[in-house]
Amino acid sequence: MKLLFKISYLGTEYSGFQCQKNGNAIQNVLTEAAEKVFGFPCDVTGCSRTDAGVHALGFCCTVAPKDGELDNWCSVPVGKIHRAFAQYLPSDISVIAAAEVSNDFHPRYASKGKEYVYKIWDGKYDDPFVAGRAYRHRRGVSDDGVRRMQKAAENLVGYKDFTSFMASGSKITDARRTVLYANVERATDGMICFTVAADGFLYNMVRIMAGTLLDCAHGKYEPEDINRMIESKNRNSAGFTAAPEGLYLSRVFYEEEIEWKCD
Amino acid sequence: MKLLFKISYLGTEYSGFQCQKNGNAIQNVLTEAAEKVFGFPCDVTGCSRTDAGVHALGFCCTVAPKDGELDNWCSVPVGKIHRAFAQYLPSDISVIAAAEVSNDFHPRYASKGKEYVYKIWDGKYDDPFVAGRAYRHRRGVSDDGVRRMQKAAENLVGYKDFTSFMASGSKITDARRTVLYANVERATDGMICFTVAADGFLYNMVRIMAGTLLDCAHGKYEPEDINRMIESKNRNSAGFTAAPEGLYLSRVFYEEEIEWKCD
Repeated sequence: MKLLFKISYLGTEYSGFQCQKNGNAIQNVLTEAAEKVFGFPCDVTGCSRTDAGVHALGFCCTVAPKDGELDNWCSVPVGKIHRAFAQYLPSDISVIAAAEVSNDFHPRYASKGKEYVYKIWDGKYDDPFVAGRAYRHRRGVSDDGVRRMQKAAENLVGYKDFTSFMASGSKITDARRTVLYANVERATDGMICFTVAADGFLYNMVRIMAGTLLDCAHGKYEPEDINRMIESKNRNSAGFTAAPEGLYLSRVFYEEEIEWKCD
Repeated sequence: MKLLFKISYLGTEYSGFQCQKNGNAIQNVLTEAAEKVFGFPCDVTGCSRTDAGVHALGFCCTVAPKDGELDNWCSVPVGKIHRAFAQYLPSDISVIAAAEVSNDFHPRYASKGKEYVYKIWDGKYDDPFVAGRAYRHRRGVSDDGVRRMQKAAENLVGYKDFTSFMASGSKITDARRTVLYANVERATDGMICFTVAADGFLYNMVRIMAGTLLDCAHGKYEPEDINRMIESKNRNSAGFTAAPEGLYLSRVFYEEEIEWKCD
């Protein structure tokens, strides 16, 4: 048995989820907390990397003993895992829920897809409560601009080659992915929210999409230009890469139903 | 002419609004920014003190030259003040809007009252996006508990002696205040929000009210006990003082209509 964790984090102070040579990774912090909770070294494996400064509302990772038996190792009731970890995690990382999964479950390979939300704050003033938690776009977006973003987002949906929406220099050779849905709306808190789900994401894909949609809002591109951009398979045809602080990994989809517990 | 600012701040890193011997006050930061924007020393005067760690959504303060003429000193169009200050303020303090007021306007004495919001997060897990921005109450509050809090809050409304809801040791001798309204609701984001307006507040008044309402939620007190607490004029009869991080100064009421500008 392995444990699957659903975690939430404010990414501001971190170099991303994955351990790196330099920098403070979420994975390191969780690995240290796991050893404190269980009393022996654990492996923490994530469903994806996230960039420095990117946030998560529902990131998934497995936790299991580093060496030794995978049976009967978990001394904490699964529904109380979130509380046990709360004692050892800093306030910007939290376990939301936990579940039991089989020994061969891999949080990345078992994933059928993921959902991201990109938040944009275009209010007239800099909101201190939004700083670092949304992309600050000082040029306001009109109602018509939001509609243009929504129309542009619709053109992202489907099985397509997203080379144009991948950071140049990326080593991926097959950039074909299926975007399951893509929506833009003005939320009740005033934030513009771009929500996008796909069976897989390329490096910087959501951030380039968000930047391109903002360019559409202001008339630099027409919503229909998205199709031309995709056909060109050229990063230069799409818009700018929006900043990491607006990006949230919101959901991970798994084939099997996960029995999340949080008592 | 003086300028009246409406400001918002995340109080986590500050010792409060007012300058103190030790500590990093909002007033200091604003005073320094004002000198940079206008090119000469300015006086910044607040509508109240706030405690260390307390936040503001609509704090009001005046800004005027420290010495010299109060005519034609403001080189920035009032509607653009928020942008001019954004260049010099840290991301946790922001000018939301500005207005012109007369030379004799005092942001505290001209105030007819203020509104505070106290936010409580009682979710099953510690939410990293809420840490430091609400009081973390791990013991969940039921729907009935929220109703009990609301009923208790209703008993706070009116012209009463709030000695029992004032920090002991406070030097105020007349603790009679008029609470204009007091409401408790579960907001759409899951937070329990206690909103209270009064013509004046005593030291720790809202935080003691919030703590007492939570005690009512869990049955330590009945909503009707609020009346008995008020009559006793004894701090010990009321509940605990809830932590500063849940408290937001949300509005300041003025007799005259303020022409807020934010272009």
